[in-house]
Amino acid sequence: MNVNYFQNYLETLHQSYANLDKGEVASYIPELLKADPQWFGIALITVDGHVYQVGDSRQPFTIQSISKAITYGIALEDNGVEAVLQKVDVEPSGEAFNSISLEPDTGRPRNPMINAGAIATVALINGESADDKLKRMLKCYERYLGRSVTIDEDVYRSEKSTGHRNRAIAYLLRNSDIIEKDTDDVLDVYFKQCSILVTCRDLALIGATLANNGVNPITGVRVLASHYVPKVLSVMSSCGMYDYSGAWVYEVGMPAKSGVGGGIVAVLPGQFGLAVFSPKLDERGNSARGIAACKKISSDFGLHMFRTGRSTTSSVIHASYDAAHVPSKRTRNVEQGRLIAELGHKVMVLELHGELMFTSAEIVIHEAMVAAKKAEYLIIDFTRAAYISEGADSMIAGLIQSLSEHGKTILLTGTWGKYETIKLIKKRIGYTDDMPLLNYDAIDDALEWCEDQLLAGQASYTAAEAPLVAQNFLIEFTAEEMEVFESMLEHRSYDEGAYLCREGDPGDLLYFLLSGQVSVIVPLSHRRSRRITSLSAGSAFGEIAMLDRGKRSADIVADDNVTCLVLDYKQLEEQSSPLAMCIRWKLATNIGRDLARKLRKATLEIKSLRS
Amino acid sequence: MNVNYFQNYLETLHQSYANLDKGEVASYIPELLKADPQWFGIALITVDGHVYQVGDSRQPFTIQSISKAITYGIALEDNGVEAVLQKVDVEPSGEAFNSISLEPDTGRPRNPMINAGAIATVALINGESADDKLKRMLKCYERYLGRSVTIDEDVYRSEKSTGHRNRAIAYLLRNSDIIEKDTDDVLDVYFKQCSILVTCRDLALIGATLANNGVNPITGVRVLASHYVPKVLSVMSSCGMYDYSGAWVYEVGMPAKSGVGGGIVAVLPGQFGLAVFSPKLDERGNSARGIAACKKISSDFGLHMFRTGRSTTSSVIHASYDAAHVPSKRTRNVEQGRLIAELGHKVMVLELHGELMFTSAEIVIHEAMVAAKKAEYLIIDFTRAAYISEGADSMIAGLIQSLSEHGKTILLTGTWGKYETIKLIKKRIGYTDDMPLLNYDAIDDALEWCEDQLLAGQASYTAAEAPLVAQNFLIEFTAEEMEVFESMLEHRSYDEGAYLCREGDPGDLLYFLLSGQVSVIVPLSHRRSRRITSLSAGSAFGEIAMLDRGKRSADIVADDNVTCLVLDYKQLEEQSSPLAMCIRWKLATNIGRDLARKLRKATLEIKSLRS
Repeated sequence: MNVNYFQNYLETLHQSYANLDKGEVASYIPELLKADPQWFGIALITVDGHVYQVGDSRQPFTIQSISKAITYGIALEDNGVEAVLQKVDVEPSGEAFNSISLEPDTGRPRNPMINAGAIATVALINGESADDKLKRMLKCYERYLGRSVTIDEDVYRSEKSTGHRNRAIAYLLRNSDIIEKDTDDVLDVYFKQCSILVTCRDLALIGATLANNGVNPITGVRVLASHYVPKVLSVMSSCGMYDYSGAWVYEVGMPAKSGVGGGIVAVLPGQFGLAVFSPKLDERGNSARGIAACKKISSDFGLHMFRTGRSTTSSVIHASYDAAHVPSKRTRNVEQGRLIAELGHKVMVLELHGELMFTSAEIVIHEAMVAAKKAEYLIIDFTRAAYISEGADSMIAGLIQSLSEHGKTILLTGTWGKYETIKLIKKRIGYTDDMPLLNYDAIDDALEWCEDQLLAGQASYTAAEAPLVAQNFLIEFTAEEMEVFESMLEHRSYDEGAYLCREGDPGDLLYFLLSGQVSVIVPLSHRRSRRITSLSAGSAFGEIAMLDRGKRSADIVADDNVTCLVLDYKQLEEQSSPLAMCIRWKLATNIGRDLARKLRKATLEIKSLRS
Repeated sequence: MNVNYFQNYLETLHQSYANLDKGEVASYIPELLKADPQWFGIALITVDGHVYQVGDSRQPFTIQSISKAITYGIALEDNGVEAVLQKVDVEPSGEAFNSISLEPDTGRPRNPMINAGAIATVALINGESADDKLKRMLKCYERYLGRSVTIDEDVYRSEKSTGHRNRAIAYLLRNSDIIEKDTDDVLDVYFKQCSILVTCRDLALIGATLANNGVNPITGVRVLASHYVPKVLSVMSSCGMYDYSGAWVYEVGMPAKSGVGGGIVAVLPGQFGLAVFSPKLDERGNSARGIAACKKISSDFGLHMFRTGRSTTSSVIHASYDAAHVPSKRTRNVEQGRLIAELGHKVMVLELHGELMFTSAEIVIHEAMVAAKKAEYLIIDFTRAAYISEGADSMIAGLIQSLSEHGKTILLTGTWGKYETIKLIKKRIGYTDDMPLLNYDAIDDALEWCEDQLLAGQASYTAAEAPLVAQNFLIEFTAEEMEVFESMLEHRSYDEGAYLCREGDPGDLLYFLLSGQVSVIVPLSHRRSRRITSLSAGSAFGEIAMLDRGKRSADIVADDNVTCLVLDYKQLEEQSSPLAMCIRWKLATNIGRDLARKLRKATLEIKSLRS
């Protein structure tokens, strides 16, 4: 099956707009006139790196003014926001691309997307010589495009030989010390940056990189520091389409930049980069088919940046439950089970999901405060939290601080891969190792830890030792039955680390733990294994393999010195005295009752997870 | 416990910026000078309707130019986008608020946020007379604010008596037929709209309504059609802060509007409305403390509209599994269970989560295409899909169409409350009742339907009838045991709709279904109930209540004519012959084995849900 709705859509769109024959190819230098007016390519690349392209999406052309956005990003990285703002303002001029638009008193260009501003921006690139600046710039393009770039020498020479207006602008900028050094070097780099060869797919990738917070979604390489990305997108949004910028935001609704080579790149932050290439320009210098195609795509898919859902607020809480309803996987004895059912409401779990932005973090805080009214322990799980914004982490840090001050214990789980966020949270709350913020990998480990705090000193049968009569499976045995049953059992001891049984062993033994603790471990490939649960004195195991007459599905390992009584079930089955028959029946019934209880717990857990 | 991180944050912020003493109270009319220069309020309202406010957030003041954004929305609703654009353009003027900025040839104001554009916008409000227009406008404010509004008569008279420049503008507009009727009426409404009394909290609510796609998040009332919301936000973004608009987007990054009364409202789409009120204005006519406070909040919480996560792409698939791992809750007999385990991979479930925007919908399509390579039935669940964008629904419609053409069956579940989306999808694929798109409420119903398709003609025991020997619980019974056991059973018949037992009945009977089907129903409050599962011939029920010696936890109702054999368990327990003892033991063991199998299924389901 090879159908793709959006690829089909783009092909149809391309066909229908190929008939649009408005505008003129740029003619201010003869080289641009060599472009085939019929060239028409569309490309879209998502933040997941999926590429869609149709038509002449691989045709090289000169980037022209689109380079201004890229250079602006370089200038920010090399100088910081404040220094760049001192040289170039960020207000729309309301005028055409070649307007001079300098601030009357300072000589500062109105914005970096008009020629005056772009020339001033080039002057801000690190590098002593024109060559150094150019190298710095081309290196940046390499990271955006995942390949090296070349300059169209003919276009460059032509730009250089006809660029008198730009020379005049550069001297005006030099005159007011906006450019502080030699204007020729700056102009040379400016003419070269306009002559860089790109394809429509390249532009989409530049857009996708900006949409993806500055990381190239195909190579995974960071191109621009994430805090500069909104700055570049802001000037694209307010000034990127010359004196069509207002209408573009109104109708298409994405930060964008166009060039007289016929390219347009538009960015939907967090989603994709979209590029159209077609050389015929409208009276404002924007690609006519480009504008039309972008309008259509935006309107067909409701892509306006201000057309949003309700953030992810309603779904940020993936699941919330307490330990009474979803206890840890640790197998407890009857008394401990009863205590956890009774006290489990003091341990609340909030599983988060999706993006944690301001409003969704606000919901988390609200839910956590509600939960903390009843709970003493709060487990916040980040496993499914795909993104945590810079503000959200300080809100969560504030939450932890407030709750800690009120004597609550907060545990963060699923934080693997969110190291930066956790580091920030720890820093903000002034974390020290003796603080009650605990950082677990798995919810289950955190749950078990909290349960252990609840049980500490409460359980009447300690985890260390339990008599045989405390066993769940032997409920309602008469003294006589108990005596006969005990006589059938074999006493065994195991040292720490010893295997009680191994995966694949025949399942004919039933173990009753008298003292110590064992772990149930499933061997995985490559010598790895996974702990399923732990069992302590008072618990029994082996009943499922016994019922199924199957083999052991896991290893059982002694966590410390362990003593137990073992029933060979076959031996019990061979006895047919009325007493033995009654023991068999009671044992089977008690096992059934225990399984019914576990099934009820599992059903509750499924319900909690689905809620 | 009454701690709230963000409320505390706002209070601290308010304290520190109360010391900022820059700017001047507006003085072009004497009434505005009566404002206390120390007034300072901040309010933030989220799209979930949570309200935060500090300082003078309840102090009334005149809305002034912020009314321009509201009136622009009214004009769009009354005339549509095209007609409004013919009268007022949407380009930033790059000039001050009172600049005249008319297009040279048409006389069209540059945008609706400068006085000329706002006056032209007032002329576009429906209504023959000034009174009609005013009523229309005040009605709109009522919906934004959830209360009626009043006009400050002193300010209004003062605006009217000094508004000569605005009168000049109105005549210029009349001269070029931008205003087509009497200018006095238009100006009167314009002066009145500037004099509407609002509080800082009111402005935050207006912002929250725009952030919430046009629905007031506190009252739930729609104020503005959702497709006009991005238009209003676009003009606020490009022109809302006069000749500070570019820098505002650059530094604060939210569509916003300010007024000379000292108010500023900013909108973070999908998240919240933020308002600051403080009467001292900077040289551009924006509240000085307002600008400073908004900058600080935006920077502290990373709220710039172009600072995004990676959309919700990575988490849009909440869970995906097949019927072999998570079968329906329908209880099947052994043969059917075996078939579903074998064929269940042909039924795939994709549970969606969060926002379905362009890129996340694209992921869904990709995942669905992968799933459809193996599966014949695809269940797409929308229960957790909080928002489906206009473009995403056509992408999903395209997916359904493609897969249907390839012979796949698509079922949509959890679509309750998403009626509009489903209607659109059905329309786009040209849905007719005989098409294989099935619309279920619950995943489980859809799963059961798909399983029934898989089983059709395959299962050797039909659902209609099954002999006693086919019962799971009677495996390994000898012929003699079977005979004795059958003699203990009572034959019963039930008509369609009859109750086999009711919730709360004593649980001492075990039912073996011979023919027909029953449903397990849990009664809820208010005469409602929920179907848990259905059982068909060959199944048994009542074993858990029997094991627990508890009461029935559900009603059992005959779906059609039902025959069954019933065991009174007490009667079995009274018999102590070796044969009876053996039957008791085998029955208990078989029940245990069945529960172990169900527990294994539940554990798999939990694992699938947690994956």
